[in-house]
Amino acid sequence: MSLVLLYASSEASPCSIKGLPLVRNISELPQDSYGRPGLSHITVAGSVSHGMKEVEVWLQTFSPGSRTPIHRHSGEEVFVVLKGSGTLYLASSSHEMHPGKPQEYLIFSNSTFVIPVNDVHQVWNTNEHEDLQMLAIISRPPVKVFIYNDWSMPHTAAKLKFPYFWDEQCLQEPVKDEL
Amino acid sequence: MSLVLLYASSEASPCSIKGLPLVRNISELPQDSYGRPGLSHITVAGSVSHGMKEVEVWLQTFSPGSRTPIHRHSGEEVFVVLKGSGTLYLASSSHEMHPGKPQEYLIFSNSTFVIPVNDVHQVWNTNEHEDLQMLAIISRPPVKVFIYNDWSMPHTAAKLKFPYFWDEQCLQEPVKDEL
Repeated sequence: MSLVLLYASSEASPCSIKGLPLVRNISELPQDSYGRPGLSHITVAGSVSHGMKEVEVWLQTFSPGSRTPIHRHSGEEVFVVLKGSGTLYLASSSHEMHPGKPQEYLIFSNSTFVIPVNDVHQVWNTNEHEDLQMLAIISRPPVKVFIYNDWSMPHTAAKLKFPYFWDEQCLQEPVKDEL
Repeated sequence: MSLVLLYASSEASPCSIKGLPLVRNISELPQDSYGRPGLSHITVAGSVSHGMKEVEVWLQTFSPGSRTPIHRHSGEEVFVVLKGSGTLYLASSSHEMHPGKPQEYLIFSNSTFVIPVNDVHQVWNTNEHEDLQMLAIISRPPVKVFIYNDWSMPHTAAKLKFPYFWDEQCLQEPVKDEL
């Protein structure tokens, strides 16, 4: 169970829906690591690239050992694991001053999980032998992400990364009122 | 590329998130046709069943010849085709009195498409030999669907189906203010 990626180049602009066909081959959408080692990210349907206003869909593949930052956001997020396995780290103690030691959850092919709004989390491909491929669905695009250096960092010190990695190229102006 | 369905029964209540593990095996989630021939529907993450407020995720499998109603809704909808092929019928002429003759689009494994808000559409497994399996992502849950008997039916005659098929069991009280 995995989405087949042919890594074909797309001739469409990554910053505009103009010229995009209504039905798109995911294999032909722009994919990039956006500077993050071991990541392949594809915006399947996005705010910046496709005009989505309420929800975005990403296809992400993490090579063994690669991972997301420790982070939080105010959008609802649903993951569907298509291939591989790994570990979800989730700190539910958002009432504290800092995330604290997260709980660990095994994630696996054909599994799904929801990240509660504003809970600090990290997804890590802890399987040494296989890529971890997931669809991530997130509301309130474009995503405004607060990044932590570690789990003991105070919430107030988390650093806003906006636009996020894959939105940087096309979204230069922060929408401050919506942060 | 397809999600493996083992059709295992779930002991969790379909109407409550209580007792559900954070990471869920999609194979163990409740699946049903909900009275629609040829359909297998699983609410992967839903408003009624899992407390989602901004987005829902469904896994749907259509046997050859089966299809959605002709319908519209005000939520944004993204489809990701995991397996099989079929036809999307889409009427973009929402400014007219009725949908009119829809445009036809081939949909296929590893393809994605977005249904513009309130555009009347239908997805049909027109492949005689294979199931059509898709993830559907939709905002503004629980979904309020207006159903058409045919493409010439006036928009004003489309019939509201609320709660929708898979929400009926758990959502008895229409939320009229939100329609």
